Amino acid sequence: MLPGLTTADLAATALFALEGAVVGAASGLDVFGVLVVACVSALGGGTLRDLLIGAVPTASVDDVRYVTVSLLGGLTAFATYRLAFDTSSEPVVLLDAAGLSLFAVVGATKAHDFSLPAFSAALIGTVTAVGGGVMRDLLVGRVPLVLREDVYATAALLGAGIVAAGLARGLDRTRVAVLGGMACFALRVLAHRYGWNLPTA
Amino acid sequence: MLPGLTTADLAATALFALEGAVVGAASGLDVFGVLVVACVSALGGGTLRDLLIGAVPTASVDDVRYVTVSLLGGLTAFATYRLAFDTSSEPVVLLDAAGLSLFAVVGATKAHDFSLPAFSAALIGTVTAVGGGVMRDLLVGRVPLVLREDVYATAALLGAGIVAAGLARGLDRTRVAVLGGMACFALRVLAHRYGWNLPTA
Amino acid sequence: MLPGLTTADLAATALFALEGAVVGAASGLDVFGVLVVACVSALGGGTLRDLLIGAVPTASVDDVRYVTVSLLGGLTAFATYRLAFDTSSEPVVLLDAAGLSLFAVVGATKAHDFSLPAFSAALIGTVTAVGGGVMRDLLVGRVPLVLREDVYATAALLGAGIVAAGLARGLDRTRVAVLGGMACFALRVLAHRYGWNLPTA
Repeated sequence: MLPGLTTADLAATALFALEGAVVGAASGLDVFGVLVVACVSALGGGTLRDLLIGAVPTASVDDVRYVTVSLLGGLTAFATYRLAFDTSSEPVVLLDAAGLSLFAVVGATKAHDFSLPAFSAALIGTVTAVGGGVMRDLLVGRVPLVLREDVYATAALLGAGIVAAGLARGLDRTRVAVLGGMACFALRVLAHRYGWNLPTA
Repeated sequence: MLPGLTTADLAATALFALEGAVVGAASGLDVFGVLVVACVSALGGGTLRDLLIGAVPTASVDDVRYVTVSLLGGLTAFATYRLAFDTSSEPVVLLDAAGLSLFAVVGATKAHDFSLPAFSAALIGTVTAVGGGVMRDLLVGRVPLVLREDVYATAALLGAGIVAAGLARGLDRTRVAVLGGMACFALRVLAHRYGWNLPTA
Repeated sequence: MLPGLTTADLAATALFALEGAVVGAASGLDVFGVLVVACVSALGGGTLRDLLIGAVPTASVDDVRYVTVSLLGGLTAFATYRLAFDTSSEPVVLLDAAGLSLFAVVGATKAHDFSLPAFSAALIGTVTAVGGGVMRDLLVGRVPLVLREDVYATAALLGAGIVAAGLARGLDRTRVAVLGGMACFALRVLAHRYGWNLPTA
């Protein structure tokens, strides 16, 4: 993995942990339960990715930094919860979109590096980006956000698809990572701001 | 795997995707959410099977045809949803029973080919057949059908058990596949038609 | 693994199956559904552990004894359900605490044997101990006990942490297993008896 990607991956992990902890705290869980939900949110997607591509032990248990930043993110959220941290505020949506983009890019890149076909790499990038959130929502007993929110997983799929297609064509890794990440970020933020919806049946 | 089994496996995958998409559309999801539920329904059981036996990357991400037919099945259901496709109608029950039988047979056969004991192969066939449906139901927030419906997983276990026992005895692969599949199909369809129930505590 | 650990692991598996079956029967499931919930409760944590550390095929499908004792535990609970087996009674809490301790110790030890860092081994021991219960609760549609009950996973983390730290320092395996197991057991039982709570946000 590109060194810069790992740093960014850790930053996205901490952010998703923070968001997960807020969901857990809002459900009335105690500090341990909040940390569990934080870790699941932050590490679930990457763990699922590693299991699917056969990268075991998974990064989440093999590299202590991932759990460490997850716990730090979770504790931060727990400590500042009374400050009325609002997950639907503009800054949080921007940060979440950044995390989503990053996970999509890293996931697709890692799948490509494990010799999976481009189509699969795009899907694995998407799973990496949204998997943790799905597990978080299942734990606290609600229908996953990704199934309710329009243009969330779609944005991840766009970003991961650009990366997967670019890598399959042998394009420069940094360039496709930046391009895919920006596309995911832009689509997610614009869809949220303007309330873009996908059709329902 | 027998060539015929792969073809049948893909057909069953498409069918389970179609059924999953109907469940997702009935829950009011948008087109992307519907496709997610379709893919989870169609690919969840086989993915769990491959993870458990160590066949990674899993077929669901390594062979593009599986995702392709899942998406096609999901889109078909989405496009025809207004036609009031009824999942409890007789033809759908027959098709679902066929898919269940096939997944049970393929799952048990693959576990046998990975040198697992017969008892485990029977269980893995069952997990293959019902795993996707369990994940689908969890995603949309309902208690899994397999826990509510009498004689559903039981039929899968019967079919997978016949295959596992037959392969362990060195019998002809095609013959045990046909026998196991027919037993599963017959038990499921008869139990549905005559309302056979298992005892509760 | 130490021979004694395997015996104890099987005993804990049977106990967790029995508890899972009671939860399933209380949800009105038929005998097959009850056995499914029993197996998921008993085998879920260890299976997750094996997937994360790359020990595939997982012990749950590779060693027939695990499924066998799970089914026996489940059938026992089903057969004796009318005897009003009470999962919150003192003997059951003691037995459950014993199972929790054992799974935490075995999980951390196995992760250590797969060369994972001590921090990860502690977490994997915890996942082993509580994973099956989380899956059980998700299946029957309730928020996982581990997120609601104070000082449950915390006790598992304490025990697994002691084992992981001790093994990393090269201490005697039996000694750290006994020490970790006793610490987990004592914390869980005392917390339950005296109603110790963790802070909420």
